Amino acid sequence: MLFSESEYKSRVKKTKKRMEKAGIDVLMSTHPANMNYLTGYDGWSFYVHQCVLVSLDQEEPVWIGRNMDANAAKVTTYLSSENIRNYADDYVHSPIGKHPVDYMVDVIEEKGWEDKTIGLEMDQFYFTHKTYEILAENLSKAEFKDANLLVAMVRQIKSAQEIEFMKKAGKIAEKVMQTGIESVGVGVRECDAAAEISKAQISGTDDFGGDYPAIVPLMPAGDGIDAPHLTWSDRKYEKNEPIILELSGCYNRYHAPMARTVYLGEPPKRMKEITEIVVEGLEETLDFIKPGVTCEAVEEKWRNSIAKGELVDASRLGYSFGLNYPPDWGEQTASMRPHDKTVLKENMTFHLIPIIWQDDIGFEMSSAIRVTEDGCEEFYDFPKKLFTK
Amino acid sequence: MLFSESEYKSRVKKTKKRMEKAGIDVLMSTHPANMNYLTGYDGWSFYVHQCVLVSLDQEEPVWIGRNMDANAAKVTTYLSSENIRNYADDYVHSPIGKHPVDYMVDVIEEKGWEDKTIGLEMDQFYFTHKTYEILAENLSKAEFKDANLLVAMVRQIKSAQEIEFMKKAGKIAEKVMQTGIESVGVGVRECDAAAEISKAQISGTDDFGGDYPAIVPLMPAGDGIDAPHLTWSDRKYEKNEPIILELSGCYNRYHAPMARTVYLGEPPKRMKEITEIVVEGLEETLDFIKPGVTCEAVEEKWRNSIAKGELVDASRLGYSFGLNYPPDWGEQTASMRPHDKTVLKENMTFHLIPIIWQDDIGFEMSSAIRVTEDGCEEFYDFPKKLFTK
Repeated sequence: MLFSESEYKSRVKKTKKRMEKAGIDVLMSTHPANMNYLTGYDGWSFYVHQCVLVSLDQEEPVWIGRNMDANAAKVTTYLSSENIRNYADDYVHSPIGKHPVDYMVDVIEEKGWEDKTIGLEMDQFYFTHKTYEILAENLSKAEFKDANLLVAMVRQIKSAQEIEFMKKAGKIAEKVMQTGIESVGVGVRECDAAAEISKAQISGTDDFGGDYPAIVPLMPAGDGIDAPHLTWSDRKYEKNEPIILELSGCYNRYHAPMARTVYLGEPPKRMKEITEIVVEGLEETLDFIKPGVTCEAVEEKWRNSIAKGELVDASRLGYSFGLNYPPDWGEQTASMRPHDKTVLKENMTFHLIPIIWQDDIGFEMSSAIRVTEDGCEEFYDFPKKLFTK
Repeated sequence: MLFSESEYKSRVKKTKKRMEKAGIDVLMSTHPANMNYLTGYDGWSFYVHQCVLVSLDQEEPVWIGRNMDANAAKVTTYLSSENIRNYADDYVHSPIGKHPVDYMVDVIEEKGWEDKTIGLEMDQFYFTHKTYEILAENLSKAEFKDANLLVAMVRQIKSAQEIEFMKKAGKIAEKVMQTGIESVGVGVRECDAAAEISKAQISGTDDFGGDYPAIVPLMPAGDGIDAPHLTWSDRKYEKNEPIILELSGCYNRYHAPMARTVYLGEPPKRMKEITEIVVEGLEETLDFIKPGVTCEAVEEKWRNSIAKGELVDASRLGYSFGLNYPPDWGEQTASMRPHDKTVLKENMTFHLIPIIWQDDIGFEMSSAIRVTEDGCEEFYDFPKKLFTK
């Protein structure tokens, strides 16, 4: 167990408070990060249906998963064994019409929760429409409510130990970015640079090991610089091409993402100018961040700052992040962009990632921060500049 | 583009044939592997809503995704630009009630498909209940049908070029497993071995680079040997512990998974016996595989073979695999287990993965194969034995 039992219990308590406010008796959480957050459960088992149930009338959550993953639940969670429930292997991609959610229905009925108001994460990727259908068909007395971001909202403010984990992820991120900058170069295959980066991510530091980030190394380059989610190939880097490195350190599923841009050769004049504008804008924005300020105000600060240099950033400036699993390290809650009125509080954590495309130039430089008592601090210490080789 | 335009077109044609048979006019595919299969689209963008639409009344599919991913669609797909459609960034995790599926509805209406029978992948993780709700609310004249495995069934039989890709993944898998066996050892941190493995996976061979597998290195060991989906920590391996390595090579999203077991020290007598029984059982089973045989018959052969050695394998013996994205390299179609009456055909591909737990001993050894004209062949050449160090 990575956190104390009391920390898990306090998370469950905060979740139950939100459930009460939303009129939800039982929450079914299928998002792997929420399952981890509420119980400690960890494992690459989220390719089959699994969930955690939180009920107002029971202190401990219930974990439900595949039988071969119950041992991982015993090792990683604080739950007592009666709250670790598992379905047989023939429920998985069954040729005879069985479905893991049938088993979840059985547990809900056994617990006497079949006529309750049940909260569901309606728009999370690990909650399929089929899951909803099976629940609705079999629990005709239940009422269902959308609890899409209910746990994510609790996750938004990190505990002291979570911040420690993210600082360790930040230490790993420094090493990872250094490795990335050293590994790319004219004549090097993209895949070989990506391989060194992944090695650095997983190996971590001498003092503590790394974990797999929720997103693989993203490193658009050359002609593909404007396709930010293209992954590497075995093409060799050429002279006079830009490379964006968007890489995260990860420690026990907690992230510290960082983006930097490298240029192989002498960068175009406009690229140097863009770098200066972005660095200045980012620093001004970081100076502006403190508790009480809204997300939209932070973005406005940024937008106005780079407008002086005639730059436009078409995508959101930043988003809440922390504990997560593939496919995303973001939390889907607050974003720094127009109309987001989230008020910043201490120990909220954001990835600010300016993405600039102008005149065929692609440029990224990011900062991962926590809101402090009276400002913000970065999770890593790494030069904000355009790297050249 | 990795495959010829004619190969993509033939895949779409086969998909349309299945649609016609199922009474489906328009298919909305949200599974990243299906999107790739039908159009070539590749990129780590599946953390936001995206889809491919296939309609019987239009030759080409339509790709719909986020604006910043449209460039990747232009680079990786064979689609003409009018069939690459994208939504603005403020649809993503919107604070103002916008949703990417609203945009998909707009495209469906614009195309005149709003009163058609629309097939949906109802139980795929990238198809949420919310997606269904938005479609149902806005397309009241449409009828919806479950097309959960429609494209996956087409994917089941691989083309000659897909088999070539999987053979290359097999070459990478050989190197990866060799690296894994060399990297583990008494006093080595699990994370450092995982790091070397990941590096080997991504780097690939000197002739061609590797891709990220859909599942990270799985390497349960020691006390955690019975928790197959636990990932690594920074614990150091100790003397006299077993380590299971379940690792894949990956080439252009095509996999070749392999499992082997390593023992640090002199293995217990029963473990050596289990190895012999499993190797013999696996070889007998591979000899039995050929077109015309059913999946359940293959599993029965296996079960009877290991029963002679008083072994039981509680999970399915194998499953169809190939092109995929996280969280799984399996295809969810055919499994080698009781009641699966799938008849084997040439160029179906399976991962046979015996998993044995007995008397605190955990053991895995696998084989990834294609069904040939008159038998089967493995995607890699790697010793089937218990490795000791």
